[in-house]
Amino acid sequence: MAEEKKQVEAITSMEEDFAQWYTDIVKKAELIEYSSVKGCMIILPAGYALWENIQKELDARFKATGVENVAMPLFIPEGLLNREKDHVEGFAPEVAWVTMGGGEALTERLCVRPTSETLFCDLYKNIVHSYRDLPKNYNQWCSVVRWEKTTRPFLRSREFLWQEGHTIHETYEEAEERTVQMLNVYADFVKEVLAIPTIRGKKTDKEKFAGAESTYTIEAMMHDGKALQSGTSHNFGDGFAKAFGIQFTGRDNKFNTPFQTSWGLSTRIIGAIIMVHGDDSGLVLPPGVAPLQIVIVPIQQRKAGVMEAAEKLKESLKEFRVKLDDSDRSPGYKFAEQEMRGFPLRVEIGPRDMEAGNCVFVRRDSGEKITVPISEAPEKARELLADIHASLYEKAERHLKECIYPAKTYEEFKDIAENRPGFIRAMWCGETECEEKIKEDTTVTSRCIPFEDNEAISDTCVCCGKKAKHLVIWGKAY
Amino acid sequence: MAEEKKQVEAITSMEEDFAQWYTDIVKKAELIEYSSVKGCMIILPAGYALWENIQKELDARFKATGVENVAMPLFIPEGLLNREKDHVEGFAPEVAWVTMGGGEALTERLCVRPTSETLFCDLYKNIVHSYRDLPKNYNQWCSVVRWEKTTRPFLRSREFLWQEGHTIHETYEEAEERTVQMLNVYADFVKEVLAIPTIRGKKTDKEKFAGAESTYTIEAMMHDGKALQSGTSHNFGDGFAKAFGIQFTGRDNKFNTPFQTSWGLSTRIIGAIIMVHGDDSGLVLPPGVAPLQIVIVPIQQRKAGVMEAAEKLKESLKEFRVKLDDSDRSPGYKFAEQEMRGFPLRVEIGPRDMEAGNCVFVRRDSGEKITVPISEAPEKARELLADIHASLYEKAERHLKECIYPAKTYEEFKDIAENRPGFIRAMWCGETECEEKIKEDTTVTSRCIPFEDNEAISDTCVCCGKKAKHLVIWGKAY
Repeated sequence: MAEEKKQVEAITSMEEDFAQWYTDIVKKAELIEYSSVKGCMIILPAGYALWENIQKELDARFKATGVENVAMPLFIPEGLLNREKDHVEGFAPEVAWVTMGGGEALTERLCVRPTSETLFCDLYKNIVHSYRDLPKNYNQWCSVVRWEKTTRPFLRSREFLWQEGHTIHETYEEAEERTVQMLNVYADFVKEVLAIPTIRGKKTDKEKFAGAESTYTIEAMMHDGKALQSGTSHNFGDGFAKAFGIQFTGRDNKFNTPFQTSWGLSTRIIGAIIMVHGDDSGLVLPPGVAPLQIVIVPIQQRKAGVMEAAEKLKESLKEFRVKLDDSDRSPGYKFAEQEMRGFPLRVEIGPRDMEAGNCVFVRRDSGEKITVPISEAPEKARELLADIHASLYEKAERHLKECIYPAKTYEEFKDIAENRPGFIRAMWCGETECEEKIKEDTTVTSRCIPFEDNEAISDTCVCCGKKAKHLVIWGKAY
Repeated sequence: MAEEKKQVEAITSMEEDFAQWYTDIVKKAELIEYSSVKGCMIILPAGYALWENIQKELDARFKATGVENVAMPLFIPEGLLNREKDHVEGFAPEVAWVTMGGGEALTERLCVRPTSETLFCDLYKNIVHSYRDLPKNYNQWCSVVRWEKTTRPFLRSREFLWQEGHTIHETYEEAEERTVQMLNVYADFVKEVLAIPTIRGKKTDKEKFAGAESTYTIEAMMHDGKALQSGTSHNFGDGFAKAFGIQFTGRDNKFNTPFQTSWGLSTRIIGAIIMVHGDDSGLVLPPGVAPLQIVIVPIQQRKAGVMEAAEKLKESLKEFRVKLDDSDRSPGYKFAEQEMRGFPLRVEIGPRDMEAGNCVFVRRDSGEKITVPISEAPEKARELLADIHASLYEKAERHLKECIYPAKTYEEFKDIAENRPGFIRAMWCGETECEEKIKEDTTVTSRCIPFEDNEAISDTCVCCGKKAKHLVIWGKAY
């Protein structure tokens, strides 16, 4: 048959070549397609549906905290980008510049936004006048552009989709509270919806956002032991406000300088979903964002009554994202395709099951087959989807916990970095030089100073031996 | 009091200066803010919430017809843009060019997408191989850039938000069917959700989309009698497919060329909402997209029991988008603000009403006050919101019907164009020259050859007097 050509082909195994496994999955599960625009990807329906579900969930969580959405311009005039010194130093080297418009050279170059702090500052300067105008908790869903040299689908591309929240407050305390609040929104979201455990913590000065006073992060561990920074939240103090001259009349009737935050989560998180849960048969999607939670596959579908029973089953499962695969492909093809695409549950129904009043649920995560009376299908589906979520989380958490190794000496540190995929817990003196040396020696970077499990394991910096200031989680990172 | 400074100020009246009225509204209702980026606007929460509601409604209608969302790159390499002759001629003069990236000059310029036909063709060439891969019904929600010289919020700006659907089909008939289907989705949506009546029809060759075989449009009439093209749907035939070399193996086992469509609706439609329904007190929003459908204003809110009753009322109305305005501003301020922002219903509740077990509904569209027993509030709200929608539509439809004037001679045509705001029904020979002459003489353009009410009103072209081919709807346009 013609479609046999499209039969789902095997993918490289994770153990053999993790990078190739990843690339195979994004292509075979039809998440992306490469484009003629170097370094930019096309997100296909199967990939975009994930992003839509992420957006829907996260947006509701934002709004529950009082966040409002806006749309800012795509472009930043060069003069505006240059206003905050650290920020422009961080971003200018990797921006794309528009120099021509409507057939004419522009008098001032416009960069395509790599992030929008400067635009929000410019807005807040115009609309914040009194303490009564504060806070503003604005967010936008958009794409940003960073001229990366090496790119990989979802993980690093010249254009990516994200949300960026930008808030402005009367006091430092309120800004700090919002910064931590949004980090927790991210941590809860990735746990409760994506089944991904993370380590919450603070970035070192070297790793913090350009222009931020402090950056908080959630760090996830991929199947190969590498870290993926999955969401960040920045407290800007009053640095940007001062650089942009934002002032408001305070309760004291004097001019005050406000405090700002920003926080973002991007399509990188789809890379995390793939690399945390996926296996050698393809994607394994958490039920919270799977475009389809259940796929019904009729067996011997031409036999009398099978399609009717399958339709009836679908109707009974309509509270879920469910599809009946009634194509003329073989059940084997359908099984393989559903596995590649990672849908959490498959339900098989054929003449023999029907006779007994049953259908068969098959879990994507474990492959387990469960025979279920048709009348109990909705209840069982609810239970299984919840259990799949819990199992995915548990497995990922076990992996995360098992692959964090303490290192008290630099020899230990280097040995782990070379031989054991995972994170390293080690003490640090607080100096950027040590971070730089560690990175040069091992390609390992500081991921964060964790909020929890941060008790000292020794008194001295693992690198220089001087007095240690913090326990740091270290790892190789995407 | 400090906030008195922010007391809603009067806006210019529509009759006095319609353009200024429009500008006043977009600012005073806080829909937009101007930005430092010339020609680009910032859409504030009150404006963006409209777009979110439009997206939600329209996206569901798209998906019900089998459309899937994707995300395409922001940039188009110059060589790709140049592939289809008519298309590049139409768009190249108004694009913005990226010439530098990551500190280096690019070897090929990239234009910031003004529309994405070329990118979708490039994708379809890669993923469409067999008739089994057809149709693809893809859409994306994004922003596009066109380097306009004169800009106005929502109506014409250098960057605007829209959706663009791009489909590819096995046969011409299927493409034509999809083209008309999506036009009807737009027409139904603006009628059923935005309460805006439109005239559906076909664009003349002069007015059709660059590269299209035919363009269908829905044309709405603003309060000042001018037209706003509110959504368009294009049948490309196989022109783009040939230019891009897209081929598929057909049911005949031979190479076939597919047929394509595209269709779009943008934030311009927010301009239509403002100019169709607004009045001298501000916005008047259709309930289908109003960010708040009901605002509860407590009267003498410090009196015992008032806030409790207001809270209880809010709870009973939670099936709607409802807010209780418990700020310390005066009821008069709140009324004026709610009117400016155009929320369909206000509910007042104070000690006197409570005693009688009543609350008072006030309609934004008519100002009518209706005393309602508190226990019947949800039912009454449902009824009133439906009636507001119906009234808004009816009023707009009456205006549209009353302001279409037939013209049999060119003298009549010119007289109407000069003296009567509205549309003109007149016969046309089919020649672009006559359209150009009419535009030069009167600034009037052909809006469409309508699908309905298109019976000939004379035998000769209103401009040249030669044999007429079509009845055309003409008008001045935004």
